[in-house]
Amino acid sequence: MHIMNAYAERKYGCMRMQELKEKNKYVFGIDIGGTACKLGLFSDDGSLLEKWQIPTDRSNDGMKVFEDLAETVDAKIRERAIERHNVIGIGAGVPASISAEGVVQKCPALGWSDFKVADKISQVVGLPAVCGNDANLAAAGEAWKGANHSYSDVVFVTLGTGVGGGIICNGRILQGAHGCSGELGHIKVNPHETKADGCGGCGCLQQYASATGIANMAEEVLMEKGDSARGSYLDGIGSITAKDVFDGAKKGDEISLTVVEKFGEILGRALAGICVVFDPEVVIIGGGVSAAGEIVIDAVRKHYVKWAFPPCADMEFRLASLGNDAGIYGCAKMVIDEL
Amino acid sequence: MHIMNAYAERKYGCMRMQELKEKNKYVFGIDIGGTACKLGLFSDDGSLLEKWQIPTDRSNDGMKVFEDLAETVDAKIRERAIERHNVIGIGAGVPASISAEGVVQKCPALGWSDFKVADKISQVVGLPAVCGNDANLAAAGEAWKGANHSYSDVVFVTLGTGVGGGIICNGRILQGAHGCSGELGHIKVNPHETKADGCGGCGCLQQYASATGIANMAEEVLMEKGDSARGSYLDGIGSITAKDVFDGAKKGDEISLTVVEKFGEILGRALAGICVVFDPEVVIIGGGVSAAGEIVIDAVRKHYVKWAFPPCADMEFRLASLGNDAGIYGCAKMVIDEL
Repeated sequence: MHIMNAYAERKYGCMRMQELKEKNKYVFGIDIGGTACKLGLFSDDGSLLEKWQIPTDRSNDGMKVFEDLAETVDAKIRERAIERHNVIGIGAGVPASISAEGVVQKCPALGWSDFKVADKISQVVGLPAVCGNDANLAAAGEAWKGANHSYSDVVFVTLGTGVGGGIICNGRILQGAHGCSGELGHIKVNPHETKADGCGGCGCLQQYASATGIANMAEEVLMEKGDSARGSYLDGIGSITAKDVFDGAKKGDEISLTVVEKFGEILGRALAGICVVFDPEVVIIGGGVSAAGEIVIDAVRKHYVKWAFPPCADMEFRLASLGNDAGIYGCAKMVIDEL
Repeated sequence: MHIMNAYAERKYGCMRMQELKEKNKYVFGIDIGGTACKLGLFSDDGSLLEKWQIPTDRSNDGMKVFEDLAETVDAKIRERAIERHNVIGIGAGVPASISAEGVVQKCPALGWSDFKVADKISQVVGLPAVCGNDANLAAAGEAWKGANHSYSDVVFVTLGTGVGGGIICNGRILQGAHGCSGELGHIKVNPHETKADGCGGCGCLQQYASATGIANMAEEVLMEKGDSARGSYLDGIGSITAKDVFDGAKKGDEISLTVVEKFGEILGRALAGICVVFDPEVVIIGGGVSAAGEIVIDAVRKHYVKWAFPPCADMEFRLASLGNDAGIYGCAKMVIDEL
């Protein structure tokens, strides 16, 4: 009995230690963008303790950013008197495809090519690091902590300057054998397009459904309509944005409504195709364009239903709810899952 | 020491028993089709011991088929003097979407609707049963035992009367939240199509890339070309088949080559889209059309490369190698994985 008690004491003493230790574990999530790096300090249960950002300095062939990240992470660790061994690691999101071996082949936004980002972060910051595609990580963040609901199978589309995407399968990011799963902006939706997309191909989804694409479509519709567009909400705006188009549509402006209809048709049809490849529980739409609100979902769902394969016509659509924080949440999730 | 030896004897005695028991375990794979049911008896290491088929009798609202299956399975068990408790179970493939709850909502080929096929088989045959979509299971079979190579991430397209598909992710079939993952034949590739597909939608991939679709495209090209088609290999064939088209193309017939080019363009572009949703190690093409051989792969890859997102342009393409047996292999794999 005495031995058993000593054993129990040791055992439960250890458990208390473990608990204490676990309570003090930290994770950094870093969303590295072309203009700013967003950082989040998380506890290992996924609570965001603090977030901040630093400008992205692309000098020295994109290497300066690593020194800046090391500096801000070190400063935060000192400021909060965190012991380094209690930092599980750093999760970083980058705007590029990453191969199964962790290599960023090409990242024009930061000037990197054929480069193992996680190794570099780990070396410069002196902490374990993992790295993923930013849109995939935003998808993971939304699936995990977004929309007051946790999903395990998600198609996430982000409508910003371009169209990004991420697929969550069984709670995990679908990476793909060449790092290309969820690169939804590059689905070819118009074989007749002659203008090239940034990827070099023509007729990519992002040439129409991104903020840039919507603005371009608005300019085209205005041109087509000519004099009959006079008096439109969009007429006379120097440089039309996607926000203008949705604002106009909300006011009932006909030209704006035409553009929203085109956007909905193209994205809705593309999503009908996406959802017979990977059939999710929910399609989540995020990115700057999604700030226009339910009008975006309504426009897309209307056309999705028309083109959908009947058994998945009743798909759930949701707006992303974490906004710019989705990426850092996804980065933290990656560290918790993988390190 | 004595105790240890007795323990070891017990332990290793048990292991030998276990081995023996495992050697005698069996699995039935059944691919239920509209005209025939293909059956395979497997050992639980995935070796095919014997295969046979019975005609599909769709009478009694599609219920007769279950009695016939029970009869042939029972007969095989008796013939081989297999003990029923050594049959792990039955895996069945059906030509329909199956919900996450195992419900076949609609299976026109067999006259079933809102129906739990696995429960029915289990009840009638008196053995544990699992059920899946036939194209998904063919994909699993090919990924597992096909092409002298085992893959864990596969896009499988089957070109038969229609176009089916299946996606293998991490060695497992991707089912989808509504049972629709891998329903590749229903990707909308032509928004201008006015003829409806069997699913009710217009412009589905299978309206062009199936055996039927290829034959239809050939008829159309012949009509378009009118008199200038005289003397073509296809001219004068009463009812053109996809095989005729590929045969003609192999002989250098211009009309046939035009049709193969159209087929390659449509399927290649669709696959470029599919591979930025789910980016596999390999695309495997099966079904009756694939019997034409490497010409199919060449036609598709030529256009795939043109439309592909650059990081996954270097995709591997392969012809399916298990032919009509892919389905029963996939059924056996499902039993081994799930029962």
